[in-house]
Amino acid sequence: MDERRLRKQDTAGVVVALEGAHDADVAGALNAIPPEAAARVLGALPFELAVRALNQPELDRRARLFAHLPIERAAALVAAMSDDQRADLFRELPGPVRARLLPAIDPATKESLRAILGYPATTAGGIMTTEHVEAPGDWTAGRALAHIRAAGHPHRPVYAVYVLDPLDRRLLHVVTLRELVMADPDRVLLEIGDRRTPVTVGPWTDREEAARLIARYDLLAVPVVDEGGHVLGIVTVDDMIDTMIKEQTEDLHKLGGVENLDEPYTRIGFGAMIKKRAGWLCALFLSEMLTATAMQHFEGELSRALVLTLFIPLVMSSGGNSGSQATSLIIRALALHEIGLRDWWRIALRELPAGFTLGSILGVIGVARIAVWQLLGVYDYGTHWPLVAATVGLALVGVVMFGSLAGSMLPFLLRRIGFDPASASAPFVATLVDVTGLIIYFTVAYLVLRGTLL
Amino acid sequence: MDERRLRKQDTAGVVVALEGAHDADVAGALNAIPPEAAARVLGALPFELAVRALNQPELDRRARLFAHLPIERAAALVAAMSDDQRADLFRELPGPVRARLLPAIDPATKESLRAILGYPATTAGGIMTTEHVEAPGDWTAGRALAHIRAAGHPHRPVYAVYVLDPLDRRLLHVVTLRELVMADPDRVLLEIGDRRTPVTVGPWTDREEAARLIARYDLLAVPVVDEGGHVLGIVTVDDMIDTMIKEQTEDLHKLGGVENLDEPYTRIGFGAMIKKRAGWLCALFLSEMLTATAMQHFEGELSRALVLTLFIPLVMSSGGNSGSQATSLIIRALALHEIGLRDWWRIALRELPAGFTLGSILGVIGVARIAVWQLLGVYDYGTHWPLVAATVGLALVGVVMFGSLAGSMLPFLLRRIGFDPASASAPFVATLVDVTGLIIYFTVAYLVLRGTLL
Repeated sequence: MDERRLRKQDTAGVVVALEGAHDADVAGALNAIPPEAAARVLGALPFELAVRALNQPELDRRARLFAHLPIERAAALVAAMSDDQRADLFRELPGPVRARLLPAIDPATKESLRAILGYPATTAGGIMTTEHVEAPGDWTAGRALAHIRAAGHPHRPVYAVYVLDPLDRRLLHVVTLRELVMADPDRVLLEIGDRRTPVTVGPWTDREEAARLIARYDLLAVPVVDEGGHVLGIVTVDDMIDTMIKEQTEDLHKLGGVENLDEPYTRIGFGAMIKKRAGWLCALFLSEMLTATAMQHFEGELSRALVLTLFIPLVMSSGGNSGSQATSLIIRALALHEIGLRDWWRIALRELPAGFTLGSILGVIGVARIAVWQLLGVYDYGTHWPLVAATVGLALVGVVMFGSLAGSMLPFLLRRIGFDPASASAPFVATLVDVTGLIIYFTVAYLVLRGTLL
Repeated sequence: MDERRLRKQDTAGVVVALEGAHDADVAGALNAIPPEAAARVLGALPFELAVRALNQPELDRRARLFAHLPIERAAALVAAMSDDQRADLFRELPGPVRARLLPAIDPATKESLRAILGYPATTAGGIMTTEHVEAPGDWTAGRALAHIRAAGHPHRPVYAVYVLDPLDRRLLHVVTLRELVMADPDRVLLEIGDRRTPVTVGPWTDREEAARLIARYDLLAVPVVDEGGHVLGIVTVDDMIDTMIKEQTEDLHKLGGVENLDEPYTRIGFGAMIKKRAGWLCALFLSEMLTATAMQHFEGELSRALVLTLFIPLVMSSGGNSGSQATSLIIRALALHEIGLRDWWRIALRELPAGFTLGSILGVIGVARIAVWQLLGVYDYGTHWPLVAATVGLALVGVVMFGSLAGSMLPFLLRRIGFDPASASAPFVATLVDVTGLIIYFTVAYLVLRGTLL
């Protein structure tokens, strides 16, 4: 792609440059220019290539492009789009554009649109395509192949034929295109291919679950069936990959404590980005204010034993770090279905000794540090330095145990009350552990140093 | 699956129960029983089903199962496995088992094994399968279909035919199975399907890059070609999904500050898990010790203005939280190729004002908190409380700016020096920012409170 040409908005030149490009690259080129110019290019591209570019979920601002297209071209493009991408587009279209487009759309397209838009975008029904191939079980392989040749859209992938009961049209099994090609053309579909019960999802199944099944069973598509066993549509592997990438971005952002951006980092406006970040940051800040409250509470101890303040950041951060570790392990294990909600107590019984062991390791290092500094004369922790060292060491055991436990239980708690476990961000866990960590530290100090420093 | 039967190791009963199961479920059932019992089941299953179960990367301990199988059965299973999974298995096999198996394997299988094992498992060459279908461009569609019918393994997927130059066998373009089925059987392959330059990777291309191309171009497989343009093999979409899931797990664990576990959380031994967590935790702990050193340095200020200690956790954690946010945004944007290394200065120019804005928001809240507590008489911050409030507010601006900058630049720095940017874990960033945050806080305090409290 010639970036300068795109910038100069030389529509004809851009169209020529894009004609041999892959769909995703056309979408990428359209993303790089202002929406008005992109709409002009989209209007001038060969129709089939324009449709394929519009079918790319990577194409940003699809809805805005449509606002700039002449109505006839827009309606023709919408009608030719794949129906899952069309539904996605309609979810984003502003009311007025939608109102202008709808009357120009044929009834069949409207019907498929209504079927998909009836489900939220986070469900299998909301991301399915209804463009799948069905055939009754008593058809022969040859007839099914002829049907695909005659009926199919030349650029839409066909992965499989969904074989239905000839009487009640319930899904019986799935014959892949490969199996169909390999089969004797005179055999009936019922006798071809893998006759194990097909893996299916319902339209209200979470899209993440559909993605998990496609990954687990190495499928190219998973059929979406209603309660009666009739095929409503299919979720294809490429939709599933897009879903995976979106969820992955969401999970990483959540773990870092950012609300989902919805737009790429490079294209989101400054104000929108601040809004997405300020919310969590302020919530965490307000919770973290409890540390100041806790410190105020222990003001007496602090003034009597100033040496204790030196280790506050060290002790607190260790709790936060061990909590982040436990959280990221549990979030992922929950997402991969390695563990379920009811396993919480098994995890707790595992994280407690793990926290104890890790805390003890850090405790020994902490005590050694204080002893070495004291004995080498680098710093003087006072006459009671062995007790100070013991305080730091014991507090580390307690704080890391609490951190591991809190960090591992939080994702369970969040899922139990209906939130995404991935909302248990590292900063969230750290904040939770900071306040408790301070209290543990000062309680240990009180017990160890009572009668000496305190 | 009947779990009790599996536990009782009733081999014949398990085999009957598994005969109608999906491959992944057979693998799951084998994962749930001890390796010796699983090997017995694998020995007794119908051969084809045993092979399919072994082809599941979800099957844990494949190498250990092979140690328990009779040698003839083991050799037959290995020969029938798909070649990418076979290579994966050989990477894990202990030397003695490998030495026992190799003589029993036919030369062609050995050759394919050698070809794949020549590349690391993190490259496209290391995860490719060499079981793809090639055909010269002057063949007709009908001949290619007949070739697939005659030559193909009935259970291996065929996604496409790789069309070669009839003279030098270079890859010209790719005809999908769908396009082949749709085509007039008498047309030659050169004239069928999408004739844009095919998307390819080299054998040394990172597997993540292969995955990204499959996702971007909605491919079912990407061909791996050598420098001369000859097809060495293909990376298929299901390998790519397995790769994505693995990398996703790795990224989330890294962001949480855990070394990659290699095994599911539920199955990893206690000792191995502690080792994976203790390393990072100790490294972070040792770095965090610098906070104690910094505090010791500011001991004089601390003893004169004890009120400053109250806000240390609050100020420090705000820096860490803003850093985590910036890091998770940048890691993801780098992974999705939304930004590249050379964009570092543009990101810096964006994160500085973002950090200033976010820090100012937190600063205002912090100042308000101190003022309200003071004026309502909840806590007495001393006669110079307005200066203390100003210190906290200004320090927050500085610390959050530094956190956002450090958190966003660290992934760039890591990639620049050859590490995975995702190694910039939230705890790592927090630790980095904690030490600097303390120094910023005390420096601001010194400037604001000089002549009054300090």
